Amino acid sequence: MRETFWTADPIDLLRVGDGFVLADSPTDARPGFDRGKKHGAYALDEGAAVLRELQEKLFAAGTVGERKQVLLVLQAMDTAGKGGIVSHVIRAVDPNGVHYVAFKAPNQVELAHDFLWRVAKQVPAAGEFGVFDRSHYEDVLIARVRELAPPEEIERRYGAINTFERGLVDTGTVVVKVMLHISKDEQKRRLSSRLEREDKHWKYNPADVDERMRWDDYQDAFQRVFDRTSTDWAPWYVIPADRKWYARLAVQHILIHALESLNLDWPGVDYDIEAEKKRLAAS
Amino acid sequence: MRETFWTADPIDLLRVGDGFVLADSPTDARPGFDRGKKHGAYALDEGAAVLRELQEKLFAAGTVGERKQVLLVLQAMDTAGKGGIVSHVIRAVDPNGVHYVAFKAPNQVELAHDFLWRVAKQVPAAGEFGVFDRSHYEDVLIARVRELAPPEEIERRYGAINTFERGLVDTGTVVVKVMLHISKDEQKRRLSSRLEREDKHWKYNPADVDERMRWDDYQDAFQRVFDRTSTDWAPWYVIPADRKWYARLAVQHILIHALESLNLDWPGVDYDIEAEKKRLAAS
Repeated sequence: MRETFWTADPIDLLRVGDGFVLADSPTDARPGFDRGKKHGAYALDEGAAVLRELQEKLFAAGTVGERKQVLLVLQAMDTAGKGGIVSHVIRAVDPNGVHYVAFKAPNQVELAHDFLWRVAKQVPAAGEFGVFDRSHYEDVLIARVRELAPPEEIERRYGAINTFERGLVDTGTVVVKVMLHISKDEQKRRLSSRLEREDKHWKYNPADVDERMRWDDYQDAFQRVFDRTSTDWAPWYVIPADRKWYARLAVQHILIHALESLNLDWPGVDYDIEAEKKRLAAS
Repeated sequence: MRETFWTADPIDLLRVGDGFVLADSPTDARPGFDRGKKHGAYALDEGAAVLRELQEKLFAAGTVGERKQVLLVLQAMDTAGKGGIVSHVIRAVDPNGVHYVAFKAPNQVELAHDFLWRVAKQVPAAGEFGVFDRSHYEDVLIARVRELAPPEEIERRYGAINTFERGLVDTGTVVVKVMLHISKDEQKRRLSSRLEREDKHWKYNPADVDERMRWDDYQDAFQRVFDRTSTDWAPWYVIPADRKWYARLAVQHILIHALESLNLDWPGVDYDIEAEKKRLAAS
């Protein structure tokens, strides 16, 4: 590992493997990290520098046409901290190289196509660091809970997703899928705090409570997602997220791990360095 | 001014007004800032917190449908520091609210349309903070210097740009146009340093020296841009950029000024706070 502060590699501790049970998975643990919040902040700064350099190498590789990409897929119950991942972890890297997409409810044109149609258009290009804030997994999460598609269509989608992601991996993309896992009590605290502060009122949406009332259905839908789509080529990671600072640190590490798997290096030059020095000196 | 460190408002000092002459405009000055690089770093941190809060209010306003947007247009000679503005100034704000577009050479489909066609598709939506890294101004800069369009078409474009930007302003967008101004000597130093370091080689492009050889033509083309398109509704700012840290600080302030002109406040609620508290407590 590039960072110094982990006591064990969280990759191994957080990856969804065979027999994973979401209901048995803690929301308030800190796998691989022994210290508290204050040290978590130092650690995040250390990791940010590592992540930034790796992303610059990814971007550089893209400029010479190397087909290497990263795609972070973020899913979670409301208030679990997706936005904080974006603003605290992704912010460390150069916005120039980030392709961020927040998927909303599909519009009429999108609904008239297969669910993957709008997603395929947004996959990262060579050298890009893609971030999906929600994703095609909504089409087997809210779509399952709210019965937005027939059961046999929902069933079909798991396989379609695996095939789609396999294609991304085969063309040079590391696919990192993260579920931020909070407890029902923690969600209540966070929603309450949005109702307490005037500068947070705009973040509160009564519809969030409607979804909250289906908590168990959503947990079941997530379990099904893990059972069906945590593949060798695109595994899920479930991150205890009651402590926001830990969740950010863990996602940061998973991204560092993903970038390292691409064996990035500064690209070679396709021009004559000495000749260019002379040409520049004369200009 | 919200920040404490300016001795005079750089808005007034850097805005392109009547009679502006680029050739007389210094590249190594620090208008409005008396201190050095070290204090510049503290100042940038202070300004970042101000910018972040304003952008969050902009984003919040967008969620309730208020038509308020910011669009930063960045233009400059190569190596002047556009990338640094993005990674050091824009990075402060939540990536979720940023719509960043790097305009490359137009492709065949784009060339078959009017030059503004691809640009119009990328203007910021309600609540968005748009960043154009290069822009429609390339169509009167490189297009003029390299004669990529007939002279009468280039002439037509200045007026078309003013009309286009007027439309953006009329629909709630603050348009901030920034030219980073470096000296020819400083560009030589920066290009040289890219040839010296292995981790910078990928940033060097022999074509940059070809453009450098047309330096005076580009300065003339920029002067024409300022003469024709620095309007009351969308003025240009020319930023001395030989000192990168000063240029970042100045652009940050211009953005803060732009956001403040929108008179942003947290949006009101369209739900019953007390009723929601009860509903949440029961859930």
